[in-house]
Amino acid sequence: MSDAGRPVRIAVPPPVPAARPARAPLGPDGPRVVALGGGHGLAASLAAWRLLTSTLTAVVTVADDGGSSGRIRRELPVLPPGDLRMALAALAGDEPRTQAMAALLQHRIGGEGALAGHPVGNLMLTGWTELHQGDTVRALRSLEDLLGSVGRVLPMADVPLDLVATVASVDPDDPRETRRIRGQVAIASTPGRVREIHVSPADPPVHPDVLAAIAEADVITLGPGSWYTSVLPHLLVPRLRAALAASPARVVVVLNLEPQPGETDGFSPQEHLRVLLGHLGGVSLHTVIADAAAVVDRRGLLSAVQGCGAELVLAPVAAPDDAARHDPHRLAAALASVVGAR
Amino acid sequence: MSDAGRPVRIAVPPPVPAARPARAPLGPDGPRVVALGGGHGLAASLAAWRLLTSTLTAVVTVADDGGSSGRIRRELPVLPPGDLRMALAALAGDEPRTQAMAALLQHRIGGEGALAGHPVGNLMLTGWTELHQGDTVRALRSLEDLLGSVGRVLPMADVPLDLVATVASVDPDDPRETRRIRGQVAIASTPGRVREIHVSPADPPVHPDVLAAIAEADVITLGPGSWYTSVLPHLLVPRLRAALAASPARVVVVLNLEPQPGETDGFSPQEHLRVLLGHLGGVSLHTVIADAAAVVDRRGLLSAVQGCGAELVLAPVAAPDDAARHDPHRLAAALASVVGAR
Repeated sequence: MSDAGRPVRIAVPPPVPAARPARAPLGPDGPRVVALGGGHGLAASLAAWRLLTSTLTAVVTVADDGGSSGRIRRELPVLPPGDLRMALAALAGDEPRTQAMAALLQHRIGGEGALAGHPVGNLMLTGWTELHQGDTVRALRSLEDLLGSVGRVLPMADVPLDLVATVASVDPDDPRETRRIRGQVAIASTPGRVREIHVSPADPPVHPDVLAAIAEADVITLGPGSWYTSVLPHLLVPRLRAALAASPARVVVVLNLEPQPGETDGFSPQEHLRVLLGHLGGVSLHTVIADAAAVVDRRGLLSAVQGCGAELVLAPVAAPDDAARHDPHRLAAALASVVGAR
Repeated sequence: MSDAGRPVRIAVPPPVPAARPARAPLGPDGPRVVALGGGHGLAASLAAWRLLTSTLTAVVTVADDGGSSGRIRRELPVLPPGDLRMALAALAGDEPRTQAMAALLQHRIGGEGALAGHPVGNLMLTGWTELHQGDTVRALRSLEDLLGSVGRVLPMADVPLDLVATVASVDPDDPRETRRIRGQVAIASTPGRVREIHVSPADPPVHPDVLAAIAEADVITLGPGSWYTSVLPHLLVPRLRAALAASPARVVVVLNLEPQPGETDGFSPQEHLRVLLGHLGGVSLHTVIADAAAVVDRRGLLSAVQGCGAELVLAPVAAPDDAARHDPHRLAAALASVVGAR
């Protein structure tokens, strides 16, 4: 479906006061939402969406190979748990009991030994996955119950993935030289620009619950987050990309507030978008949300958004006290404007 | 107080059917019970007591230096969590949700890496203790809440302990030679008879909640369990022994069903009792419970029990299908007979 003829809208919804979250316009439970991503970016998107809906599914990257997740996936045949754990914590219920559980999940064991740095939730998810004979989705259900989760958390693939990128040298004497880099950590720490990126295995299995959530969604968000390692990977999984292309949902891109060192050094919002557009396949974008203050070249971004037939929402979505972080209530207001715009 | 003039009773209470647990005779919540011990033995005593009372406190050894607990205490400034975790699991509520949590606590992570063999509950307790700035008792409360615990779990000391034993050689050419062995694992794996055992530090701090539970108890049980490493250690902590000696509670010893390799090879029930009597200090025993079938020399055991002014209860407390394991309902019936005998 092409939205190329639709008018472009630059909307600046008013900030919503913290005490009165924006109400969802679609039914008592709000819109059916699928949020794609990983890490802190996905946590920000979930923090906003949970103010608008209780029909919320996070579909989380499983390509991390660093830190605790990397140590665990090298040691055991499980999905890297870190991004899944962060999404679970972001969806924990508001009660003191469930918030205390979320704090435990996020707490990293101290010291300098074999356990140092492992968030307790990574170990709990790993243990529960083993108890459930490798069924990560069932293990996630157990943790959702424990956390009184306001939504579901699912992995974007049923097997651990590796990212493989072709990175152009930053050596000015040899600008055409490229290197093939394997692994999320290696890609993020290699100087140079990513020219091409794919996942290995190339066509991993995707859980039926993920495909069903995407097929039934009203809205699907991509981003914010580490662009190459948390946002793009979903588009690199063929079965996920096909499901996104076939879904009637409005696909919304939430752009990052600033470039990320090692991944998108010096990237403007429209360069972020350009990279994403190169991997969309048959997926149509409905709306692109960017922070009004983070966009220097509004005309350039508008032109890029128009070029793919989408609508641009420029809104104050950064936190008032931290321009690098999305404010849940402000982002919720921007998302609500998308959901409400029929 | 001396009970030397009290008549000796050899009681054989009828086995209680599994579907109808014995009822506690003291008030609607049952007697106030403190169960001392560690490991599987304490779990057996708790499994029986929870059928009789909901005012139940486990006071758990913190001297383990083996396995997961040993690795954790060498790595981090926390109490060895293993025995505490087992007691928590034994007290988990009956609902599917809390039983599933108990299963997670007990599950040991697989593989052959840095995490292999750690029960998830040890890691959760460690994480929560860190989150609570080293307050193990508060961390235990958090886990009790999570498990819908039918009682409390407290450590027998507020600092990790080491057991230090003098072990007599088993070399027939040099029967008088003794060796000083430090650490629970080393003691359990050293051939020979333990001649003397103490804890290091010699006078560790004991949590006020432990002292209060002992002071207010109607019944306190010692054993069953690894005799030198789970049952005796409580009597080696001066503040705990003083609290036991001052308590008006009936102190009940539950003897083991069989000797334990490495600790009590070849020990008869009365030899277990003799070792215990040597460490009682001012603590008076009220009752000794032994399995009728496990006692070969009834006259010898009776004489030993009489010698310390206690009453002997000989009852069928072993599981019908496993003579090495206490049956919760049968042990509960025997304990109920003690609680009821005014």
